[in-house]
This record gives sequence, C-alpha cells and structure tokens, in this order.
Amino acid sequence: MKNLIISKQVKSTERMSLQHLIRPKTIAVIGASREETKIGHMVLKNIIDGGFPKENVFPVNPNVDNILGLKCYPSVKDIPVDVDLAVIVVPARIVPKVMKECAEKKVKAVAVISSGFKEVGNVEGEREIVRIAKEAGIKLLGPNIVGIADTPMKINASFMPYLPERGKIAFISQSGALAIGLVTWTKLKEIGLSDVVSIGNKADVNEIDLIEFFSKDPHTKAITLYMEGIEDGRKFMEVAKRVTKVKPIVMLKAGKAERTAAAIKSHTGSLAGSDIAYDIAFKQCGVIRAESFPTLFDYGLALASLPDPKGENVVILTNGGGAGVMATDACEQYGLKLMDIPSDLAGKLKKWMPEFGSTLNPVDLTGMAADRDYYGSLQTLLADERVHAIIILYCHTAITDPLRIAEALVKCKREGKYVDKPMVAAFIGGRECDTAIKHLTRYGIPAFENPERAVAALAAKYRYWRYKKRPSGAFVKVDGNKEKAKVIIERALREGRALTPSEAAEVAHLYDIPVVKKRIARSKEDALKIAEEIGYPVVLEVESPDIVHKVDVGAIRLNIQSREELEKAYDEVLSNVKKNAPKARIEGVVVRSFVKQGVEVAVGMHRDELFGPMIMFGSGGTLIELYKDVAFRIAPLTDIDIDEMMKETKVIKVLEGFRDKPKDIEAVKKVLASVNQLSLDFDEIKDIDINPLFVYEKGCIAFDVKILLRS
Amino acid sequence: MKNLIISKQVKSTERMSLQHLIRPKTIAVIGASREETKIGHMVLKNIIDGGFPKENVFPVNPNVDNILGLKCYPSVKDIPVDVDLAVIVVPARIVPKVMKECAEKKVKAVAVISSGFKEVGNVEGEREIVRIAKEAGIKLLGPNIVGIADTPMKINASFMPYLPERGKIAFISQSGALAIGLVTWTKLKEIGLSDVVSIGNKADVNEIDLIEFFSKDPHTKAITLYMEGIEDGRKFMEVAKRVTKVKPIVMLKAGKAERTAAAIKSHTGSLAGSDIAYDIAFKQCGVIRAESFPTLFDYGLALASLPDPKGENVVILTNGGGAGVMATDACEQYGLKLMDIPSDLAGKLKKWMPEFGSTLNPVDLTGMAADRDYYGSLQTLLADERVHAIIILYCHTAITDPLRIAEALVKCKREGKYVDKPMVAAFIGGRECDTAIKHLTRYGIPAFENPERAVAALAAKYRYWRYKKRPSGAFVKVDGNKEKAKVIIERALREGRALTPSEAAEVAHLYDIPVVKKRIARSKEDALKIAEEIGYPVVLEVESPDIVHKVDVGAIRLNIQSREELEKAYDEVLSNVKKNAPKARIEGVVVRSFVKQGVEVAVGMHRDELFGPMIMFGSGGTLIELYKDVAFRIAPLTDIDIDEMMKETKVIKVLEGFRDKPKDIEAVKKVLASVNQLSLDFDEIKDIDINPLFVYEKGCIAFDVKILLRS
Repeated sequence: MKNLIISKQVKSTERMSLQHLIRPKTIAVIGASREETKIGHMVLKNIIDGGFPKENVFPVNPNVDNILGLKCYPSVKDIPVDVDLAVIVVPARIVPKVMKECAEKKVKAVAVISSGFKEVGNVEGEREIVRIAKEAGIKLLGPNIVGIADTPMKINASFMPYLPERGKIAFISQSGALAIGLVTWTKLKEIGLSDVVSIGNKADVNEIDLIEFFSKDPHTKAITLYMEGIEDGRKFMEVAKRVTKVKPIVMLKAGKAERTAAAIKSHTGSLAGSDIAYDIAFKQCGVIRAESFPTLFDYGLALASLPDPKGENVVILTNGGGAGVMATDACEQYGLKLMDIPSDLAGKLKKWMPEFGSTLNPVDLTGMAADRDYYGSLQTLLADERVHAIIILYCHTAITDPLRIAEALVKCKREGKYVDKPMVAAFIGGRECDTAIKHLTRYGIPAFENPERAVAALAAKYRYWRYKKRPSGAFVKVDGNKEKAKVIIERALREGRALTPSEAAEVAHLYDIPVVKKRIARSKEDALKIAEEIGYPVVLEVESPDIVHKVDVGAIRLNIQSREELEKAYDEVLSNVKKNAPKARIEGVVVRSFVKQGVEVAVGMHRDELFGPMIMFGSGGTLIELYKDVAFRIAPLTDIDIDEMMKETKVIKVLEGFRDKPKDIEAVKKVLASVNQLSLDFDEIKDIDINPLFVYEKGCIAFDVKILLRS
Repeated sequence: MKNLIISKQVKSTERMSLQHLIRPKTIAVIGASREETKIGHMVLKNIIDGGFPKENVFPVNPNVDNILGLKCYPSVKDIPVDVDLAVIVVPARIVPKVMKECAEKKVKAVAVISSGFKEVGNVEGEREIVRIAKEAGIKLLGPNIVGIADTPMKINASFMPYLPERGKIAFISQSGALAIGLVTWTKLKEIGLSDVVSIGNKADVNEIDLIEFFSKDPHTKAITLYMEGIEDGRKFMEVAKRVTKVKPIVMLKAGKAERTAAAIKSHTGSLAGSDIAYDIAFKQCGVIRAESFPTLFDYGLALASLPDPKGENVVILTNGGGAGVMATDACEQYGLKLMDIPSDLAGKLKKWMPEFGSTLNPVDLTGMAADRDYYGSLQTLLADERVHAIIILYCHTAITDPLRIAEALVKCKREGKYVDKPMVAAFIGGRECDTAIKHLTRYGIPAFENPERAVAALAAKYRYWRYKKRPSGAFVKVDGNKEKAKVIIERALREGRALTPSEAAEVAHLYDIPVVKKRIARSKEDALKIAEEIGYPVVLEVESPDIVHKVDVGAIRLNIQSREELEKAYDEVLSNVKKNAPKARIEGVVVRSFVKQGVEVAVGMHRDELFGPMIMFGSGGTLIELYKDVAFRIAPLTDIDIDEMMKETKVIKVLEGFRDKPKDIEAVKKVLASVNQLSLDFDEIKDIDINPLFVYEKGCIAFDVKILLRS
C-alpha cells in the first residue's frame, strides 16, 4: 500500500491556493527593461497592454527611473505596497539574489521566466531557488517559462504577443514555445481561454497543483493540458479522479513514440507499454485524451460549453445528404448512438422540409432549408424529451446565408423555452461559413468546419458524461495470508532472484488463487513422494530445455492414477526420451496434478514506474504477445473496473459461451482480485504472470504462475 | 472469368474523350433566365463572371431576346455555330424535348443540371434522356447536378457561387450539395483546383469515365473524389489500377456505417463487410483513401505537388521541442521512418542553431531560429542525398516572423540547386502563420496548421509512391480439373443446394488442395469400405447435432490402424454415445483419415457483389470470427498479393516459427492460389471456407471445406 499512502501525504494543505500566482492584485516585474527587444521589456509592455491596472504594476530595475511611464524600483523591497506576484526575467545567475529579496519583501508568488536552469544542466541553481521559495513560503512557477496569461484579470505576464480571447478553458502547457503558437492559434479561431500557464521546469508548482487550482476557479469550466510527461503518476490519478467529478480535464499527452520500451522480461510487462499506462490512467480517472492540439481545444470547447445530456439519443440535422453520411460514419467511429426517429416526431419535423426531405436520422431538410426551417426543426427537436443531443450540419448552398442560419440556431437555443441539450455544429463552406462557425461557438454551440470534428467533440462530452455517471464500484479486497507470503518473498529478495515456480505457486495459493500443484522430482522415489503429497491423478513430464514437443518424443504421461502406474510411467518417459531425443539434457521429471484443459486466459500484473501496478486480463496461451487481446487497469481495482476490463477483451465472449457453454467468469474475477491484492500488499513484486489460467464451467486453475521481484 | 471479361469489354473506345464536356469551346445554356433567383440565370451569370469569352456563350430561351447582354436563341438549333456543351436547366419534363433538339444540332455534350429524375423515382424519364444521348452520340453528365467548374478554361457552368482557385487537383463529387460547400471551403483555404465535376445521378458519364479523362488531362496532377458508392467495382479497379500508374487518385468514400451487412452465412462472408471490400479494392489499385474532406484535399495537395522521394529517410526540422514530439508521434502512427542523422550531417546542421539546439531527429533549431537558420538548415538537408523527405515545423515565437521564414523556405526550394525532395510543413500559430501556410502551399510546400496533418499528407505521398514502385507480381494460376469440378457444382446447382462436405472436399482436391478424406458411414460395413478407400490410420466420429464435445462422451476414436480395430471401435463409439448421451440424435459415423493437429489457419473466399471474389487468409479455428486476424485481397491474385496479404495477419508469425519451428508457408500459398483459381473458374461459387487448414513443417491439409453456391 506504500504508493497509496504516499499519494495521500502529498495532498497536503501546503499547496492549497495559487490565488496570488494566477489572480494577483499587484505585480512586480523584476528585470524590466527599456530595450524593446528584451523579454524584460516585452513582459512589462504586455502586462500594460493587456489591460491590467497600471497602478498595480511595479517594474524593478536598479539602473533606470521609469519604464513605459511607470516608476521603476531599484529592488522589489522598495515597492511601497504588498506584492502578490513577482515576474522574474533577470539572467539565471541573478535569480537567487532577487528571489532572496522577494523573500524579504514577503512576495506571495514568483513566476521565473528566466531560463538557464535544469534544462541546461544547472540543477544546483534550480535547487537553490526552490529552497529559497520553500523557506519563504513563496509559490514558484517555472523557471524557463513563457509566463502566465489570465483573461479574467486581463494579465498578460508573459512574452505571448497578446492575451487570448476571454473564455472558459484553462490551458496548462509544459512547452513554452507551444504556448505562444497555440494561444495565437486560438485567437485566430476565436476560441476563448480563461488562463494560459506555462509550467516549464515545474521546479515547484506543477500541473497537479494547477489542476487543483482550476478545479475551484469559477472562471474555468474545462482544464486542458499539453504535457510530455507527468512527474507523479499516482498523485496525478488521485487528484484527477477527484477533479473530474466536478470539472472536465482534457490532455494532449505527446511523446508516444519517444520512449523505446526498456527490455522487460514478463509477458504482462511487454504488453504494458508506457503510453498504454497513460491511456489506462486517463481512462480510469476520467481524463479525456486529445490526439492533436486542434482536438485538445475542440474537446475543451465542447466540455466547457455543453450541458450534460439526459441520454444517448443523438439526432443529426442536415441540409445535405453527403454531410449527413459523413456525420453518420463518424458517429459509428466515435461511439455515438443515432436515435430512431419516432413517427410522431417525424410528423412534426416534416413541416420544415419539402416533400423530398427525410425524417430518418440524419434528418435532411434538403438544400432548400432556410433559417426558419433550421429554427423550426431545432425547436421541434429541443421540445422532444426523447432527443438528447443534436448535431447540426450545414453545407453551403447558392441560395442560403449561413450566418442567418447560425443566428436562428443561437436564437432558438437562447430563448430557453426547452431544456438545454448538448448541440454541436459543422458548417461546410467558405468565408461565410467561417463567420457562422465563430458565431455559433461564441454562443455555446461549438461549431467546426467538418462533420467529423463536430462528432468527435460531442463524443468527448459523452465520454466524460458516461464516466461521471458510471458507478465507481467497491474496492475488491482479498484476505491473503500476507505473513506467509512475505516470508517466501523476502527470502527470494535476500537471495536476489525471482520466485521459483513452486514459490510462485505457493504465494498464489496463499492468496486464494487455485494453482496446479507441481514439483520437480530428481528420482523415482522423489516423484512418488510428490505424487502422494499433491494427490492422484498426476502428470509426469520430463523437464528439458531441448524438447519442445513433449508428446512427440513420449516425454509426457497424462492421467496417472496410482503409485504403480507412476512407477511404470517414470521409467517409460525417461527411456522414451533416451531413445527419441538422445541428446536432450534432462533436468528432472515434473510431477503435477492432472487437470483438464479449459479456456485459456491470462491474468497478470506489471508495476509501471509512473502509475504503479497495472493489472492485466486477456486471452492466454503461448500466443498472447502476438494477439494482444488484453486489457489493463491500474490498482487498486474496484469490482466495476474488473468487470469493465474483462469486457474490453475478445476472450470474454468465449467465457460468456461463444459457441459453447458459459464459463465461470466469477472465478476469474476472484483471481484478478487476488492479483490486485498481491500487487498492493507487496511493493516488491514487479511482475506477475498467470498464463494459462484454465477456466471451466465451474472454477478455474492457474497452470503456470511466474512472479518477478524488484531488483 | 466472367467478371474479368465484362470489365475488359467496358473499356471500349466509345467513352474515350470527354473533351467537349470538360473543356468546351462553345457553351449553350438551355433554360437561361432573366430572373435572378432562377438557376437558369445563375448558371449563365456564373459562366460570364468566371471569365469564359462571352462571344462563345449562347443562352437559349424562346421567350426573351437577350439575357445579361447576350443574344438569346429560341432553340439550341438556332445557334449559328457548333455547340460543344449544352447546359440544360429546364424543368425535367421538358428535358427530353431539348435533348432531341441537341441531337439535331449535333451538340457534343450535355450537362443536365435539372433534377426530377431517378432521385425522385422518375426512372423512365432518365432512361429516355440517356437513350436520346446514346443514339446521338452525345455525352450526358447528370442529371441532378450542380454543374461543372473548369479553372483552366475559366468556365463556371454551375450554380457554385464562384470558380475555385486555379490549381492542379480535379475534384469529382457524387453529392452536388457538398460540391458547393467544398469548393467555397477550398477557396477560403486557398487550395487550387483544376476542375470540379458534379456527377449527380450519373446516368451516362460516371466517375470512371472522368478518372480516365483526368488521367490524361495536362492540367490535373491529382484526382480527388467524394463518393457514396461505386456502380461497377471491377471496372473501377481495372481503370484505377491503370490510372494510378501515372496519376494519383484520392477517394473520400462515405457511407461506411450506412449498410447493415446482410445475413451472410459463411465465415469469410461475415468477415468481409462491404466497407472492407472498398478498403481492399482501393489498396489493391493504389487509390489513397481519405478519412474526411479536409484530408481529401490535404492528400490531394500533397500528391499533386510533391515530387517522388528517393527513399524512406524522413527528417523533421523544427524550432520547438513540442511540435517535434507531436510530429514524431504522428510519423510512427502514419508509418514514416525518421532517419538517424549521421554525425557529419549533424556537424553541418550545428551551424544553424545555438549550443542548446539538437541535431538528433527532430532537428531542433530552437525558438531563436530565424529565416536564415531555416534557410541554411534546409539547404543542408536538401544537399544531403541520404535525406529523402523533410517535415518543416514552425511554432510561433515572440521574436520571429513566420512569413519571412516561409519565404526563405520557398526561396531555398525554388533555387533548385539540389534535387527536389518532398517537403511538407506545419506552422503553429495565429494569423501570421495562416498567411505563411498559404504562401508555402502556393509554392509547392503543402503546409498545415498542425503537425499531424502535415505528417498524414506526406504519408499519403509515401503510400502512393510505395504502391507505384511495388512489383505487381505474376498472376498465380492453378491447373485444376475444371471439367470434373463443373459436374459436381452443376449437379448441386440443379438441386438448389450447397455442396455436401464430401463434394466440397472433392472439388478442393480437384484443385490440388490437400484435404482430409472423410465420408459418412451408415453401417459398420459401410465404414469398413470407406476406411479401405481412404486408407488407414483413420478416425471414427459419431455425427450428431446434439453432441458438442465428442471426446467427453466417447463419441470419437483416433488413430485406428486396422480393419479389426475399426470393427471394435465402431461398436464402442456408438455404445458410448448410447450410454453417455442417450438422447442425442445420431446421423451416422464419419470415417476420416487420421491427421496430426497443425497450426490452424483459415483460407476462404467471399464473392462481393461489387468487387467480385475476395480471397481471405487468417488465423483459423472456431474463434476466427472473434479474433478477426484475417486479410483479404480481391481476385485475381498475384504472388505478391498473396505474400502481402499473409504478412498483414498475426498468424504469419506463427507460421514463420514464433516460439517453434517454421511451418510450410509455400504450401499455404498454393492453397490460396487454388482458392483464387476456383473463384475465377466458377462464378457460381459464392463462398469457400477452409477452416481449419492444418499447417505442418512440411505440407498442410484442409480439415474442413465448405462451398456455398449462388442461389
């Protein structure tokens, strides 16, 4: 449970509020400059140009009297009022000195724009400024950042050329360069943001603190992030799980291809790549993952603007068949369910279209549809409780004006006659459509240039909504014999090795996992003794690294019922091998209980360095790595997690009785719960592989258990 | 071979040239109108506004003297010069009449914009105008279209509001509504087109004719299509295969979700959905498939502009880590190979970046990079023969001007000092970047707002290039005993049934497919006779629809070596069933040759209604429909097709010796060739399922063969 405990500790009160950093009332710019090409000039100018009250901005520079019409102070200490935020733009070597002055001045927060720290190897310098900040109780953002843009307070404390449009999306960026690119891009697209925070080296304040802050910020309705890596996976999950209950998080996690998976020895490990871990973690804590930066903001927009749907019934409203077909394809791709339009609703919709229109879904108003037809049909759809979300499409025609149609749609929405429903739009066409798209988006109907983006954005809203309403389930607990297991594990740890097959089987057994009993015999007497212990019927199998197909050379005998049969069989298998594979090295004869073959599944665990134990379920057998029919969840698991992860695989269909009788799924769930418990009880266990686990109509049994320990 | 013969016939000379339709010198507008809201007015006005010489435009309307300053003729027959193209905008019921006048006038081509034909059930009217056109040798486009836009001739014979920008992409649209939306969208994005052709009901001229035309058109470098369905799949493939040798085709095929797969009885059939057939067909004839309309034009742009690469080495040049990471992820996703930068090249690149830049790939010039750094590093990359394609990224900064950088890049490209290489770009930022993107695109460096789109566009070019340079291979031919097989098949057809298992096995055998011999015995004597015929060792198996697990009830006996053993076993299996499954209905006892279990693969064929025989290879066994590890190709197959389709599956790894000795892949290829031949020799065969096909280190054998016939 060590991981869990750690993450609880970090959730301390110490980092509670970032109010002075993000919503400061007074700002000092340390390193402000008169030279227009210097960042110290740009930042000061941007703060003033952004609209923040000039009287609350204090340039600091010992060499000049005033900059841009503001009185300049030799040191932050000379500023006559309390300073909420000091923006630091002096060279790296001077940062510690001005930080100390900030400490003396009791500045609440600093944003260190200056670079030249950890990113260029200056680890010591970075450590020093963090130490100064911690001692003085100063929040430190950066170093090596572009700065902060805060639209509610009109603060552009950054070298981004201008403030983004005012909006409800907070954007946290690990990359400073991208922050500028993306903010100017959102301006072009007229996508509004509440804040932009560049976190740079995140020496102190990191993405997790900011997520916490924005979760409580009234100006922010959705939190978006561009990240290349997360520092503390388990804490991230814990915070994200809590935050997504009240506010959506959308993440563009780049660097999928970056990591070349280290040589990992277990099956489960080789299947659980780093990026998969991110995927699973995001899924489990309701974080919506974006595939590119346009989708990051598409999803952010949808999640910040759209009300929750009341159900899964989506209707497409279009003026053209082609656009409708594209949206239909996208709905299938993104998992949205198109409603079958009931005949009474169809009758009402018929009013708004010519004879050759269609009241099937997509509802096709045809190219004749003018603003009043869109208005009327949208009103009809909003009035009908069976309709839960609407995708509005417009394809530009020679006779209609997209802006008038957009205005009609917005009017219909804003009249508020009916319950608000999530609506997205795609307007296909030129400049007129671009204008209409911006109008719709501004008034809460996120609109896009192609149907696929509209559908994907609505689907992001649906994913989040489904996550929120999904029951979180009860944590599964297994009372394993922890003490006994500990003895076995610690012995192996002392000897610096993995568990032997029989130790692994024993540990599994101690956690209620049914295991095929087996031991290796060095002599006939040995074999007889083992067979007595594990009980007849047994199987004898010559152990040799040189024999792949044991049946072919007679190295295996099944279903041995008695002592007499075993004595005979022991001699036989050895003589068979001598005859048929004379060069094979023989390491002994394995005696194991005789079990029927069942459906082969695999259960496993791989401890991810970032997120901790990843529990696996999937198809078993020797081809598991080839077919990759597996699903993962990060421990601790709830019963719902187990249920959902099993349903993600194809082999669940086999267990449910594909072309055969149903198998004992409950028994498999128990094994998953045991593996979950083992992973939580023993931090020392790095990997567990149970493959195959034979599943029968009643019960299941682990045929082979491997347990690797942390080295 | 019937399908093949048909498609050869259609490739007739009759449809050779559409020159008069697409590049007319004189145009009549029949149904021209003075009323501004009428299409008959818009079309005439659009033709004049587009820039086509007025003196070659002839309005036809019996009720007025002139329209828009042009003399108006009562009938097309009254026009004093030859008419290449008549655009018809009169009501549907009058179209036949004016078509007859066009025939008398010897008009070369007509574009029937008028709707009211097949799309509203007026099949007869449509048939009539086609008949008139065919008899008079007139090319007929439409009816029910938006019209034609032709930028080289400056003809906007449509109700699209304006001509698209001049460019090298031809766009063929099945949807008229979308044509307007997309053309205005391309105008906004400054994407140039050579032509836009709306094909509507395609009563005569269809997408295949137009592909043929544009393949020879000097103004067109890439052909793009929006289609919801193709009429003649095999002809499409034949033409597309030929055309893609010289000119790229990009297709947005909508309607994936549309079709609910009809109840299909065979395994292969259920795996080969309609949309998969399109995917396979496109792949086999080198057609690049687009996923949305922006990608349609992204790919069109890349394919129309980029030179062929000389190899697979791609280099990313960026000014920011974040953009580089996103592009790297996308390269992995889209199958582009990032080059390892050799140290000598790294040394040369170092000149263009500060100390903290990176000469790894992505090459990171850092946010300091100005136009001369981009210019210098691009020149270095162009000069190096080991670099084959370049992805240029710019993320907007506070200190650089994207347009100057774009101009530097274009200058470098246009100087032509070095071999031209495919280059794409992504400029992330606001309005300045948008301007830069348009500049780059205009000068042959397709540029986009996000890295993923740039990478996808370059990847489309690579896909096409790889297709073109791939050897087409030799058609595989198997000399089956067609005469004997025909007797068996025709008998079953007469009796209106599928082939029996033994008939299917016999047909397979006649085409050199090794098959487990088996027959059903109704008595012990029968069984003995059959065993003599197929040869010992044999297997006995009670045939019953009520017994799933034959081993469990003792209904099966393996490895019967002799007459004596068989006599005993026959009684045993029947008495076992009587004892263990007393209620089971017994249909006989199957006698089959005893074969070892091998790797289970499946080979099959499903005859798609549109594209003909789809040959399948994949993992075999009872779970084939669950795991869907299958690949398809449309017959006739070449040896390369067979090779490639096998490599698309996961089971190929098992055959290649995953954790075991390699299996006889050549033997499987022969079975695929045989199934290919059967599908070509017998149009009557609808489906073939060979599952499992056991594959051994030497040879393979079909354990079960099913053949369904067309009903």
